[in-house]
Amino acid sequence: MYMAIMGHGVVGSGVAELLHKNYDSIVKRSTVDSLDLKYILDLRDFPGDPNEDKFIKDFNIILNDDDVKIVVETMGGLHPAYEFVSSCLKAGKSVVTSNKELVAEKGYELLKIAHEKNVNFLFEASVGGGIPIIRPISQCLAANEIDSIAGILNGTTNFILTKMIDDNMDFSDALKLAQELGYAEKDPTADVDGHDTCRKICILASLCFGNHVYPNSVYTEGIRNITLADVEYVENWGGVIKLLGQSEKLADGKISATVFPSIISNKSPLASVTDVFNAILVTGNAVGETLFYGKGAGKLPTASAVVADVIDSAKHFYKKKEFGWNDTVENYVVDYKELENAMYVRAASSDCEKIKEVFGEVKFLERASAPENEIAFVTDVMKESEFYNKLNSLALETLSVIRVSKY
Amino acid sequence: MYMAIMGHGVVGSGVAELLHKNYDSIVKRSTVDSLDLKYILDLRDFPGDPNEDKFIKDFNIILNDDDVKIVVETMGGLHPAYEFVSSCLKAGKSVVTSNKELVAEKGYELLKIAHEKNVNFLFEASVGGGIPIIRPISQCLAANEIDSIAGILNGTTNFILTKMIDDNMDFSDALKLAQELGYAEKDPTADVDGHDTCRKICILASLCFGNHVYPNSVYTEGIRNITLADVEYVENWGGVIKLLGQSEKLADGKISATVFPSIISNKSPLASVTDVFNAILVTGNAVGETLFYGKGAGKLPTASAVVADVIDSAKHFYKKKEFGWNDTVENYVVDYKELENAMYVRAASSDCEKIKEVFGEVKFLERASAPENEIAFVTDVMKESEFYNKLNSLALETLSVIRVSKY
Repeated sequence: MYMAIMGHGVVGSGVAELLHKNYDSIVKRSTVDSLDLKYILDLRDFPGDPNEDKFIKDFNIILNDDDVKIVVETMGGLHPAYEFVSSCLKAGKSVVTSNKELVAEKGYELLKIAHEKNVNFLFEASVGGGIPIIRPISQCLAANEIDSIAGILNGTTNFILTKMIDDNMDFSDALKLAQELGYAEKDPTADVDGHDTCRKICILASLCFGNHVYPNSVYTEGIRNITLADVEYVENWGGVIKLLGQSEKLADGKISATVFPSIISNKSPLASVTDVFNAILVTGNAVGETLFYGKGAGKLPTASAVVADVIDSAKHFYKKKEFGWNDTVENYVVDYKELENAMYVRAASSDCEKIKEVFGEVKFLERASAPENEIAFVTDVMKESEFYNKLNSLALETLSVIRVSKY
Repeated sequence: MYMAIMGHGVVGSGVAELLHKNYDSIVKRSTVDSLDLKYILDLRDFPGDPNEDKFIKDFNIILNDDDVKIVVETMGGLHPAYEFVSSCLKAGKSVVTSNKELVAEKGYELLKIAHEKNVNFLFEASVGGGIPIIRPISQCLAANEIDSIAGILNGTTNFILTKMIDDNMDFSDALKLAQELGYAEKDPTADVDGHDTCRKICILASLCFGNHVYPNSVYTEGIRNITLADVEYVENWGGVIKLLGQSEKLADGKISATVFPSIISNKSPLASVTDVFNAILVTGNAVGETLFYGKGAGKLPTASAVVADVIDSAKHFYKKKEFGWNDTVENYVVDYKELENAMYVRAASSDCEKIKEVFGEVKFLERASAPENEIAFVTDVMKESEFYNKLNSLALETLSVIRVSKY
């Protein structure tokens, strides 16, 4: 059986490397006679690459070669990945992708084409890098109704927050270090502002709850505004700040889906997930809480997930996998202002009494060497709209507002 | 499609309950028209049970009913589970089991029959209760060569150790509490002496490394001898004591496989696994470290894993799953005395100099209100045979010896 790789970046080159490295066991587990790489599509030249003779620049060579049964898409971005993938599926080829933007924006549509053509469209690598999560949700937890899913889904922001928590670095220094170490891009927007996490929670929520969740329906807030003062208050409260993607089944067939920094109790299994690691907490109505943990990015970890999908596609070429992922429905994702959270507030004030008057019993937090005119507190659980009504009525100079996670 | 359950204990009744509770989604995900429970085999009577009309006492009714395509075995124990399961497979029925003893002792043989008969023999529930682990290893990490696996695989002992560590309860009080709460059996041997963990590491090692590992080849030590003094020394060292099942790929196609209490650094993701939770750390040559965490036992969590296998069997009835689990080979599991570990020793002595003379630079540990004639230290990493030679040459009154985990 022949395959092709589109995009020879970090993940794509990792796929080629891994196919070579573990070739014998991969072929054996695919239950095919052979599984060989025929083409690598990339506009760049890679002189001296061990697969030098396989590089092509024209997508149509792959599309029109009937011997190529499985196509790996590791180009990233929406275009032309979307056009290429959809053409491959329509031509009866199975496609495996690591492209979270593609799956988050076009998952339903591409799965529909795959279904019609009786081929596979698989995307284990699009969430959590090498951590097995898509298949465990769709198969291992298939006896469950999933109640909720929450995860630390972006290694870059988790690294930055870890440096802020453990080494007292401020956000910009920690970001700089992440860039120096190659964990963050020169333009860190996609990670730092939560867009990457947003795409991943869209994929997970679509899978868990059955209808496509589009990124533009997910309230998304990044970590740029987190300060060391917040980190310190939260530490004294007994927790840490993490960027969480979350989604939960609500009443009337609706769901929540959000991305924002969240205060997590040290007792939560999510609290000890540090550095570039990711972890995903899935709660099912039979299994209770399960957690999946590992490296959420990186060349070989991500390639490991891609190749697992390739093996699955080779093994079950005409037995397509079904994910039960349907079209979206109107007002599927509830407005985040309707969700209920306890809220952490840091404000330039010293008027505890006034705060108690409006919010009732709140928990005031402390930190060493806090300026006199600073106050931090955690409210009870309440609707976000109600919280902001109350906060606005106080007319405080608010410095930070962070939600307290229930996980 | 019809199925039967053999054994209406905790897990079996959970399977019946879950099938009823999530019936619609289970049938949908099985991609069959219906998936109905026809018989429940149990020698006891269950008057008033919602499935009262389905109870039978004669196994042959199941065996001879060609409509029954999937049989769930949740009886436990080796006999007659082994005879029943092997008869069902030979009759062309797929079998799903939660019985770790059966899989650990007869896995290779039963998989061979399933292969010959082109049916499935699945056992996700036999390790880690509801935690997805068998399928993630065999499918999601299929692109990897697995290097090692280590896990907290028994909830009862983990609960007891957690009570010792967090609440300063001694072993016998913690065991008593576990029994009162229903976590430990009246005869706690299988849990406390490590046999349950042993069976589970046998299953995981067989799956990860390709040849059947039998329980009698695995050095197994339980937690009866762990004292609060040890817990305290280890806490000051910066770690916790956990009962670990471990297996690792060694040179020349051999492996290690052991069960013993292990000292785990607080930095390890395994250290924060408390109470009845289980966690399994799998290291692959591409993915690096991944961890799977959740409830390792309990009615619905375990039933959730059983029913996931039922769904898979219904979906792929004639497309049997292959695990690459072969017969054992001679001297496959290396003698534990040949393995290398750092070792913790507590002894009735005060002669630090003599210890240093024999062991070289060791790390001495401290605890509050230690008796004068007590010493505790951690050695460098060395072969266990070498360690015992040295220890014996010291002729100390040894109070405890615990291995230090590298995980």
